[in-house]
Amino acid sequence: MPRLIKKTSRKVGLPPGTLVHTGEKKSDKVKITIMDYDEAQLEKKEARTIEECLPFKETPTVTWINIDGIHRMEIMEDIGKAFSLHPLLVEDVVNTEQRPKMEDFDDCVFVVLKMLSYDEKENEIKAEQISLVLGTNLVISFQEREGDVFDPIRERIRNGRGRIRKMGADYLAYALIDAVVDSYFIMLDKLEEKMEDIEEQLLLNPGPETLNAIHVLRRKMIFLRNQVWPLREVVAALERGESPLIHESTLIYLSDVYDNTIQVIETIEKFRDMLSGTIDIYLSMASNKMNEVMKLLAIIATIFMPLTFIAGIYGMNFRYMPELEWHWGYPAILFVLVAIGLLMLVYFRRKKWL
Amino acid sequence: MPRLIKKTSRKVGLPPGTLVHTGEKKSDKVKITIMDYDEAQLEKKEARTIEECLPFKETPTVTWINIDGIHRMEIMEDIGKAFSLHPLLVEDVVNTEQRPKMEDFDDCVFVVLKMLSYDEKENEIKAEQISLVLGTNLVISFQEREGDVFDPIRERIRNGRGRIRKMGADYLAYALIDAVVDSYFIMLDKLEEKMEDIEEQLLLNPGPETLNAIHVLRRKMIFLRNQVWPLREVVAALERGESPLIHESTLIYLSDVYDNTIQVIETIEKFRDMLSGTIDIYLSMASNKMNEVMKLLAIIATIFMPLTFIAGIYGMNFRYMPELEWHWGYPAILFVLVAIGLLMLVYFRRKKWL
Amino acid sequence: MPRLIKKTSRKVGLPPGTLVHTGEKKSDKVKITIMDYDEAQLEKKEARTIEECLPFKETPTVTWINIDGIHRMEIMEDIGKAFSLHPLLVEDVVNTEQRPKMEDFDDCVFVVLKMLSYDEKENEIKAEQISLVLGTNLVISFQEREGDVFDPIRERIRNGRGRIRKMGADYLAYALIDAVVDSYFIMLDKLEEKMEDIEEQLLLNPGPETLNAIHVLRRKMIFLRNQVWPLREVVAALERGESPLIHESTLIYLSDVYDNTIQVIETIEKFRDMLSGTIDIYLSMASNKMNEVMKLLAIIATIFMPLTFIAGIYGMNFRYMPELEWHWGYPAILFVLVAIGLLMLVYFRRKKWL
Amino acid sequence: MPRLIKKTSRKVGLPPGTLVHTGEKKSDKVKITIMDYDEAQLEKKEARTIEECLPFKETPTVTWINIDGIHRMEIMEDIGKAFSLHPLLVEDVVNTEQRPKMEDFDDCVFVVLKMLSYDEKENEIKAEQISLVLGTNLVISFQEREGDVFDPIRERIRNGRGRIRKMGADYLAYALIDAVVDSYFIMLDKLEEKMEDIEEQLLLNPGPETLNAIHVLRRKMIFLRNQVWPLREVVAALERGESPLIHESTLIYLSDVYDNTIQVIETIEKFRDMLSGTIDIYLSMASNKMNEVMKLLAIIATIFMPLTFIAGIYGMNFRYMPELEWHWGYPAILFVLVAIGLLMLVYFRRKKWL
Amino acid sequence: MPRLIKKTSRKVGLPPGTLVHTGEKKSDKVKITIMDYDEAQLEKKEARTIEECLPFKETPTVTWINIDGIHRMEIMEDIGKAFSLHPLLVEDVVNTEQRPKMEDFDDCVFVVLKMLSYDEKENEIKAEQISLVLGTNLVISFQEREGDVFDPIRERIRNGRGRIRKMGADYLAYALIDAVVDSYFIMLDKLEEKMEDIEEQLLLNPGPETLNAIHVLRRKMIFLRNQVWPLREVVAALERGESPLIHESTLIYLSDVYDNTIQVIETIEKFRDMLSGTIDIYLSMASNKMNEVMKLLAIIATIFMPLTFIAGIYGMNFRYMPELEWHWGYPAILFVLVAIGLLMLVYFRRKKWL
Repeated sequence: MPRLIKKTSRKVGLPPGTLVHTGEKKSDKVKITIMDYDEAQLEKKEARTIEECLPFKETPTVTWINIDGIHRMEIMEDIGKAFSLHPLLVEDVVNTEQRPKMEDFDDCVFVVLKMLSYDEKENEIKAEQISLVLGTNLVISFQEREGDVFDPIRERIRNGRGRIRKMGADYLAYALIDAVVDSYFIMLDKLEEKMEDIEEQLLLNPGPETLNAIHVLRRKMIFLRNQVWPLREVVAALERGESPLIHESTLIYLSDVYDNTIQVIETIEKFRDMLSGTIDIYLSMASNKMNEVMKLLAIIATIFMPLTFIAGIYGMNFRYMPELEWHWGYPAILFVLVAIGLLMLVYFRRKKWL
Repeated sequence: MPRLIKKTSRKVGLPPGTLVHTGEKKSDKVKITIMDYDEAQLEKKEARTIEECLPFKETPTVTWINIDGIHRMEIMEDIGKAFSLHPLLVEDVVNTEQRPKMEDFDDCVFVVLKMLSYDEKENEIKAEQISLVLGTNLVISFQEREGDVFDPIRERIRNGRGRIRKMGADYLAYALIDAVVDSYFIMLDKLEEKMEDIEEQLLLNPGPETLNAIHVLRRKMIFLRNQVWPLREVVAALERGESPLIHESTLIYLSDVYDNTIQVIETIEKFRDMLSGTIDIYLSMASNKMNEVMKLLAIIATIFMPLTFIAGIYGMNFRYMPELEWHWGYPAILFVLVAIGLLMLVYFRRKKWL
Repeated sequence: MPRLIKKTSRKVGLPPGTLVHTGEKKSDKVKITIMDYDEAQLEKKEARTIEECLPFKETPTVTWINIDGIHRMEIMEDIGKAFSLHPLLVEDVVNTEQRPKMEDFDDCVFVVLKMLSYDEKENEIKAEQISLVLGTNLVISFQEREGDVFDPIRERIRNGRGRIRKMGADYLAYALIDAVVDSYFIMLDKLEEKMEDIEEQLLLNPGPETLNAIHVLRRKMIFLRNQVWPLREVVAALERGESPLIHESTLIYLSDVYDNTIQVIETIEKFRDMLSGTIDIYLSMASNKMNEVMKLLAIIATIFMPLTFIAGIYGMNFRYMPELEWHWGYPAILFVLVAIGLLMLVYFRRKKWL
Repeated sequence: MPRLIKKTSRKVGLPPGTLVHTGEKKSDKVKITIMDYDEAQLEKKEARTIEECLPFKETPTVTWINIDGIHRMEIMEDIGKAFSLHPLLVEDVVNTEQRPKMEDFDDCVFVVLKMLSYDEKENEIKAEQISLVLGTNLVISFQEREGDVFDPIRERIRNGRGRIRKMGADYLAYALIDAVVDSYFIMLDKLEEKMEDIEEQLLLNPGPETLNAIHVLRRKMIFLRNQVWPLREVVAALERGESPLIHESTLIYLSDVYDNTIQVIETIEKFRDMLSGTIDIYLSMASNKMNEVMKLLAIIATIFMPLTFIAGIYGMNFRYMPELEWHWGYPAILFVLVAIGLLMLVYFRRKKWL
Repeated sequence: MPRLIKKTSRKVGLPPGTLVHTGEKKSDKVKITIMDYDEAQLEKKEARTIEECLPFKETPTVTWINIDGIHRMEIMEDIGKAFSLHPLLVEDVVNTEQRPKMEDFDDCVFVVLKMLSYDEKENEIKAEQISLVLGTNLVISFQEREGDVFDPIRERIRNGRGRIRKMGADYLAYALIDAVVDSYFIMLDKLEEKMEDIEEQLLLNPGPETLNAIHVLRRKMIFLRNQVWPLREVVAALERGESPLIHESTLIYLSDVYDNTIQVIETIEKFRDMLSGTIDIYLSMASNKMNEVMKLLAIIATIFMPLTFIAGIYGMNFRYMPELEWHWGYPAILFVLVAIGLLMLVYFRRKKWL
């Protein structure tokens, strides 16, 4: 889990609009990919410079420019100028500690999302910021590094499968957001498996490390809730359809994304509830164990303390102790001791301690 | 209890409107039943193909088409086309991991419900998704498998008992929703019995398995709350009566369903509160038991440690220990030991430990 | 405390408007009492059949018809027809598992209330459903059995004391609701006494039965909250004064009832808060007791284990143990043992364990 | 702390508007004080009967009538008639179990407040109800007994210091409310000192009485929150400025009072949070202590049990035990015993138990 | 952490508008600095008296008057008169116990902020109140003492870097607020480090002082939440842009500040959640430790009590104990004792206690 606020503070004191990339430099290369399509045709291209993108800007076809890598400030500034984006918008793209948000600029809609994935090896939730700019017939997507959840969409554009080639840039933007939200389910699925592992461990062999695992998971849930909660407002804002850039026919799809977002949030809350329950179980199992230990102690002490006392009595050195002289004294006392011991055992079995 | 999110994720990456059945295939057959009625007449029919339903579509009589089994995608697509349903609607019918919801399409109202039943043998809440499409003089209901809570309604239609034959399709839709909500009370009733069992067990013979039963029940409540909570919004949306398909005379009945839904939600919350209380009782009973164990230990140690010490003193081998030579030394010391023991017992009784 | 949902489920599957009395049959007789009054005159009458009430229906004087006993369905149906009440209204009167609610029918206002009383002998809160129908110059009140909190109102009508004879049917309805809410204070008063008993018991002689009493009381509070909370909405809805049947001059009295309802709710919440605190105290007292037990054990063990060990040393049978031969060996070792014991006691007193 | 609801219930069943004084009779005398002022002049007077107040009613100067003592019903009724106050208003003045509230009658604004003070000697929060009636050029204030927080205001009127003489009756009402709210800060200040005392005690010498003190304080906070929370609505309602009796120039002062009220509420919430933390600390300190006790026990047992066992072995009476015959046997075994004891001590020190 | 309400109470009873400085006198000097600029020119000046500021008041250039030190009442009154500020405004500037708030006076906007910094040495959050008055082409900022977070802004004005010189007084006000909010991130960063220290300590060597550190931090979070929560409303009120003093072009920057404020609040809530988790871990680690102690005790007792008992038996002085006479009796019994001890150890290893 990334530290919660560290990087944001680096920017303190700079004038707004100053470009400072606040994430770790995740890749050296900046890769620009262009897909330009309408129902009839499709052009794919990997651009070297931002200038190569400009011809697509004015075409009536839908243009999707995907930029992997946002750490080179001079390139980001160029992009901002080339597409006349507001300086604050470019600043938000570059600052990877943004909350998910949606802003309606006059000539474009700006959406910040988080792509979340659970890395099972490192037991870590990885977050990558994805910014979308929806303009007229244009979608620009910014990612921190290569590798994303958009391949099925690229595939659909290539194949012309589904509605995507027939619809506008707003539908493309919807498809990208939908892909991000869908990927949350995969992550939650993995987290649920993790949770089931922990519960199994809890029942078989609980130990301090189980509790620790629960707490690590709980902290992940806090992190997730903070990442996903604002997303609800983002999708709701889009669905309200106030921007002319979003056509009415797309609204019903956005309402579908909204439903999914709600389901993600509810699942996270459910997980949190279940984790609390798990902690309760852990604590009561620990207290059960303690109880068992104490019972053993009490049984041992209750049986052997009286026995040792009796043996002690006949170890006293008084001159006149008639029992000591009896011939059957020793067997008799052995019998008494065993009898007392057995009575105790019966008593504890009755009390269901054994 | 079904796993919470597993199946949804299978769909990730497919274009919206692609039909993927996300539940387990619960039955092989698809069964289509038609009831077509008005005040004067009633026609019942089991259809083999969806084409047989079409003649009923245009009649002024109320037509109820019930479809058991939604796993055959080609049939679902046919139904979608035959009744010109929006592709997203059909997708929602087939995806059985939906939250309860209500959507107002132009020419129909779409409602997703959950039929919940508590299987006492497997101690499991079973959920089956029911989707209703309310069109003009038409109600289509989709179920995952045969067997439902609608038999009393079929009976009422057959008998012409109550208002149902005199009223329109919206009243039929209300009756179906009402039947689903009513069935929740049966389930809650069974869960309450389960809860009473646990409480009895708690008072008679609590053990770790009692705690486990409580936690299983608590998790069921989390599940239930998530299933029922959105239902409130669904019924409220219907009751608002914005769709022209719902006549004003039906609204008062919907308001009745709304009251019932609220009561279900409140009962679930009550159960949750009561379960929390039950856990508190369990924990304090466990701590009481521990206390008793410790008390026993302390009593035994407090009585026998001093006695054993005194016996130990007279077991020492000093040459000059005058007491040892006394003739009444041994009886005297026995008397002293017994006296000390009795005093201790009196002391503990005073302290109310015995 | 009545079981929470049991009876409601009996009705599942019946058409709406079917009359099913869901409460226990609380009385065999149905008693109908009529009071008809205006400022000048008063007529009191006990009716045998519902037909005897009809003449009063049309008079310009205020008519209060009180019906004790709602279990005879045929009578209820007659009443419904005689006063042309909506079938759903009559159904709600008969179903005694209603939440408090207010419904505005066209020609009458329908209010469902709960009369609550605390039966100290059985340590139970008894709930009786009271339904009010406010029509033009007419109030019909339905009760499950005889015996209510309305006697002071009857007295006031009889004496002509206060405003009641000068005002309309809406004021009478207000007076009835006010009497019900006022009776809650008596119940809360008794519950507070119960709570004080428990707290006293907690300080003097806490045991598992104290905890149990706390939990029984807490459960009562959950029950109460569920009964009283919807009442707030009921009174607020009346106070909004949207029905023409409620005159503006009555609104200020309803606002007074509203204040009282809020106070009842706040008191219940306060009680719940206080009960939580009580549980905390109980648990920490239990842990204090445990601590004391452990301290005793530790003190006894710490004093006697070293002493027993020393006595054990001089009980060894080595041939050459010079101390054993010393003449003052025995007194010396006794002195050492006593000294060690006293030192231990001083140590524990310093540590404030004694 | 006064019992929470006791007195209210006495009134049950009486017609509304019946005057019943529900507080304890706090003083025998009823004292009526009049201050009549404008910028130019000031008249002060102690009235014997309510009739003496009447001449001031019609003057264009601001008249403040303060009444200490509300237990004489006949006087209260006279006042009500003299100033033509609504019967419900007078009833609310006399019923000292009111929640703070504001009601807008046609010709006057009615405000109920609570004057709260913390009596350190009896460790009790004392509440006195203050009712204000704001009419045209008239403020009537009712108090349960003599002694209040209004002396600085009287002083300001006498001196003509500040704005008060230049402004109207609404400003006077504001000044009175402000004085009441200001006095809350003094009380909170004292409570904070109390809280600091408890925390100190917690660190130095915690015991069951500390926990009790915490719970008493927590209960006070519940009481306070219930008294102050509705005040926020009262001031907000006044600040909304809907009554023509409140001039716009006074609104900014009321907004100041509102800020203070919010601060009081936040402080109470803060205190509640802090008290919860304090309980956590107490509980974990208790568990720490228990841990220490157990450690001591374990250390003592672990050291002396093996030693006593070894001594026991050489106390056995076997005929052939070669060690017993050795000349250095006794010193050797003593050395072994001491060595074992020391090793144990080293072990425990390593484990940081010592 | 400053005491929560102490100073406010000093003011009780004074007329509103009376200037009382409620903070500690933090500096003796009052320092007045003026920056007057537009795009073309910049004038910087340190003023001795407030009169020197007046010429700048009427200029069309933006004037920023910064006042360090607010404890000299006569100066504050002069400033109030010189810039015709409302007396309540000046009172709020001087009363350093204000909550953050925004008030819209007719001719100026008044904002109260808190500059917060975490002093690692004293482990204390220091709060300094900053008041801003935004008038036409004028910003007056009041600080309690010298030293602030505004140096980067001064630098930007001096250099003409960024937009600041081109924009109006509202932008300057925004920049100041932004600088304050940005500084919160630095503080949160330090607090997070502190939190990580505590967690490390928790895992390595937890003790009562760890718990104490957690509680001190938790209390800081309560304090912070109370300081920052109202800030959200302040910025939201500004962003709503109702004052003509704030131009539309500045609103987007304020929306940026709003986002940051939300992030600060969420971070604080996250910290609170995490601290709760930390306390849970601490408590369960303590209970684990206790469990270990008890296990040791039980193991020791279970092994040595039976052994000591057996040794005790052969220490009895019966005349006829045949075993004592056997030649191999002593070695045999030693073997038995060792065997029992080893069996016990094997048993405990099997139970995973060792």
